[in-house]
Amino acid sequence: MRILILGGDGYLGWPTAMRFSARGHEVSVFDNFSRRRWHTENATDSLTPIRDLGERIAAWREVSGREINSFVGSMEDNEFLVSVVERTRPDAIVHYAEQPSAPYSMRSRDAAVETQYTNVIGTLNLLFAMRDHVPDCHLVKLGTMGEYGTPNIDIEEGFIEIEHKGRKDTLPFPKMPGSLYHLSKVHDSHNIHFACRIWGLRATDLNQGVVYGVETDESAEDERLITRFDYDEYFGTVLNRFCVQAVIGHPLTVYGEGGQTRGFLNIRDTLQCVELAVATPAEPGEYRVFNQFTEQFSVSELAALVRESAAHAGIEVEVRNFPNPRVEAERHYYNATHTKLLHLGLEPNHLGEELVQSMLKIIDRHRDRVIQRAILPHTTWKSGELEGELAAPEPSTS
Amino acid sequence: MRILILGGDGYLGWPTAMRFSARGHEVSVFDNFSRRRWHTENATDSLTPIRDLGERIAAWREVSGREINSFVGSMEDNEFLVSVVERTRPDAIVHYAEQPSAPYSMRSRDAAVETQYTNVIGTLNLLFAMRDHVPDCHLVKLGTMGEYGTPNIDIEEGFIEIEHKGRKDTLPFPKMPGSLYHLSKVHDSHNIHFACRIWGLRATDLNQGVVYGVETDESAEDERLITRFDYDEYFGTVLNRFCVQAVIGHPLTVYGEGGQTRGFLNIRDTLQCVELAVATPAEPGEYRVFNQFTEQFSVSELAALVRESAAHAGIEVEVRNFPNPRVEAERHYYNATHTKLLHLGLEPNHLGEELVQSMLKIIDRHRDRVIQRAILPHTTWKSGELEGELAAPEPSTS
Repeated sequence: MRILILGGDGYLGWPTAMRFSARGHEVSVFDNFSRRRWHTENATDSLTPIRDLGERIAAWREVSGREINSFVGSMEDNEFLVSVVERTRPDAIVHYAEQPSAPYSMRSRDAAVETQYTNVIGTLNLLFAMRDHVPDCHLVKLGTMGEYGTPNIDIEEGFIEIEHKGRKDTLPFPKMPGSLYHLSKVHDSHNIHFACRIWGLRATDLNQGVVYGVETDESAEDERLITRFDYDEYFGTVLNRFCVQAVIGHPLTVYGEGGQTRGFLNIRDTLQCVELAVATPAEPGEYRVFNQFTEQFSVSELAALVRESAAHAGIEVEVRNFPNPRVEAERHYYNATHTKLLHLGLEPNHLGEELVQSMLKIIDRHRDRVIQRAILPHTTWKSGELEGELAAPEPSTS
Repeated sequence: MRILILGGDGYLGWPTAMRFSARGHEVSVFDNFSRRRWHTENATDSLTPIRDLGERIAAWREVSGREINSFVGSMEDNEFLVSVVERTRPDAIVHYAEQPSAPYSMRSRDAAVETQYTNVIGTLNLLFAMRDHVPDCHLVKLGTMGEYGTPNIDIEEGFIEIEHKGRKDTLPFPKMPGSLYHLSKVHDSHNIHFACRIWGLRATDLNQGVVYGVETDESAEDERLITRFDYDEYFGTVLNRFCVQAVIGHPLTVYGEGGQTRGFLNIRDTLQCVELAVATPAEPGEYRVFNQFTEQFSVSELAALVRESAAHAGIEVEVRNFPNPRVEAERHYYNATHTKLLHLGLEPNHLGEELVQSMLKIIDRHRDRVIQRAILPHTTWKSGELEGELAAPEPSTS
């Protein structure tokens, strides 16, 4: 198959590219290096010393004997996007190429506009490019479980049957997202659904939970193939950040009460899910939604798991509750259906002490690269970025 | 009250500005003349010979002795928008300043991107400007009944109580809009709801039906005060277009079977509704949705009403079914709740032969201005604008 991976230089994009390439597919990656730019602007960086895209591709060629094509540019540049779609004529497009951070989207009006513009207009360009040039191509789009928010009813996979005043219909599951970033994904979902309904495109929207982990089968083969690992306030996800904090002796930063519950999955399972979605495409005109996670945890549960796993590895870790920079329910009902990917054959890698300890080991190898300043939140949901002072009290770093 | 009307040069914006001014409020209008520009680009025009904004304001001053302030610029220009909000410090902002046409949004990628950019980013700028400068101001935003689509259950006013697997929650009503324009309004609704939930802004989202009519109490006072009246494929609404077709002897253009049912209201009732919303503002943090229409009709019913009203005025009218350029259900269940504005005191002006005949009279005064070429659709939902040929067969014009 010809597979085009948008955002193919990213945390998930690069491992996905190697995975499909290893399976013998013809892989092209498309990226504008936004994530690298945002890190430069914030004076932060990946914990892992990632190589630039050209080096990665060369290392992959050396290790695997396989070629990955690359295209450097933005989806907002429609002419360029169309030219890449025309040149690659993909059977499947895996679309990760969005601004993925909730706190980043909340830091300022500029960042909010950048987020919604990049994500919504980029995806809109893609939908037109597919309609006009590869109408039979299958779009596999990275969405987020955060689109749903935390309703007081079970979350279904994209659609819900509603009985109301004696009549019935199956309609899109109502969305109450928690940030302007999450809103951009809701907007995308509506636009993609429309493109399937009206133009007959085929799409799978992967409403993904929070990903943790760093190593995949392919990246383990050579250190130059490692993917990024973010732990900073903008791009770090919670378990990855807790593990970094554990290694450097920083208290684990639980925001608020810690009862916030979300779906989680291992990066290895992300790759499985995307492979399954690509292997069993949506039908023409079909817009399907998979809730892509394997287990639910509260933030406090994760903190406890990291503390215990670290203790068993001889590391003492403090868990501390910090003022919550977000506006969100800190205790709430949460039960999200996630059976569609299991039915397609997903075999979950469950989270446990062993996995946490392996992450701690990888992090320890790069502990000298940790930028402490980047860990605590400076952005609050109420009023954006705080200037010149921290949102949370200065922790002890012993 | 200080009232800022965004899109204050438009079909509804200008009559709204005069109405609030007549009531003694301090009114400012904000407009970038997009609608006038789009007409120039399409070589179309308002049926009514509208004056430019400066002339309108001068005529209004002459007639009423009252001053309306004007600001010419775009909401996408954040710096300008903020400067106007800071200078006017409104108690209420009435926001009509969006690209309002479904067919326009479907004509090309450029038009779709323009629509979603103008509408979503403009409104996002406004939400930040309100948060940072007038957090207590009440936003009255023009949405559309088209956000809901045509579900097989009753449409509620913005929210619906869902019982699911033994649990209950009240959640946003699921949206299945029918064009990329309608999608932009769905995106706005989600963003505004968020701003109320997170920042404590107050907003009323007016999910308006299809408006008809041209005259209001204020515009009737002087011909220079008349508002625009569009009948072209992009900006004409269905009843207005049928009335123009009746006057010039063009067959009424019913798309498809004509069973498409929607909510409708008189332009005079739009003004009533907006007045009621402004007079009884949402609470801080409240996002409320009013379904703003007074009656439901199918397209075929409207065509029949126009034919009969015209017949009684001595005009013979043919009704003809044209291939539907849109992708939409042509027979469907439709029952939308619309009680909130009635509870606030709305007294509907119902549609009947008398009203149609008065519209036919006004149109007849300007019949020499009708541009026939502009009436039939050139844009289809499937593939955008057709070049060099009409989507519908050439009708007889006798």
